[in-house]
Amino acid sequence: MQHENFMREALQLARDNIEAGGRPFGAVLVKDGQVIARAANSIHLDCDPTAHAELLTLRRAASVLGTPRLEGCVIYASGHPCPMCLAAMHLCGVEAAYFAYSNDEGEPFGLSTARVYQQMTLPPQQQTLPLRPLRPAGEEGLYVRWQAHGK
Amino acid sequence: MQHENFMREALQLARDNIEAGGRPFGAVLVKDGQVIARAANSIHLDCDPTAHAELLTLRRAASVLGTPRLEGCVIYASGHPCPMCLAAMHLCGVEAAYFAYSNDEGEPFGLSTARVYQQMTLPPQQQTLPLRPLRPAGEEGLYVRWQAHGK
Repeated sequence: MQHENFMREALQLARDNIEAGGRPFGAVLVKDGQVIARAANSIHLDCDPTAHAELLTLRRAASVLGTPRLEGCVIYASGHPCPMCLAAMHLCGVEAAYFAYSNDEGEPFGLSTARVYQQMTLPPQQQTLPLRPLRPAGEEGLYVRWQAHGK
Repeated sequence: MQHENFMREALQLARDNIEAGGRPFGAVLVKDGQVIARAANSIHLDCDPTAHAELLTLRRAASVLGTPRLEGCVIYASGHPCPMCLAAMHLCGVEAAYFAYSNDEGEPFGLSTARVYQQMTLPPQQQTLPLRPLRPAGEEGLYVRWQAHGK
């Protein structure tokens, strides 16, 4: 039930964002049964292509908790998280995530990221965005230098 | 050659970041042969788990260019982009990306994101971070509402 209430809050953020001229996405991040961060997609306000609701909750929660590690946190997102946001959740240790609207439901409205998910299943060098190695002559030892610096 | 110079600049940002106590990652974003944005990983400064060099160049370039769409842009990153950053590049239309140090080279230093890439090849519901649908009773029509609002 609490579970559903968190999702209702994410959905209300999405609805409020529509009224404010934004995209229909909201999210809340919860730890130990408490909402730590709330966000709505703010691309329309910030001209920031990464200002997705979920990514913003990660940034705000890290700021509130004072650590970039978010183990034990759960995200409730109005729409299926995109692969950028899902990978970000993996990277900072988020425990689980829930969504109310699927990519299939978003597809007729241009709100699905299934195409990018499909790309992410391929090896990076085989995706439509070519990702290639480029090593200038004489370049070496970057990571050894970092390690020697005491990290 | 210009190509290599852009990468050398990304590598210098990474080296400078090591000296400043940060992680060994730098990136530059180029459009029409001009550097539009530069960044180094700033997690150590910002307590922001998304403050990767590549993601920061996307945010800064969008701000400079006045649009969240980055078609025609190319990213030079010192290390293999993580899946969050690669998906973000896909989402905003980046044309291509280059890296100098591979995940294999990063692995002994704990700087590889191969594990998260492996997760991203799986359907989202089968990844180690459980992503599950949760639709509160009575919830419907979010995207129709957005469309009706004129987007």
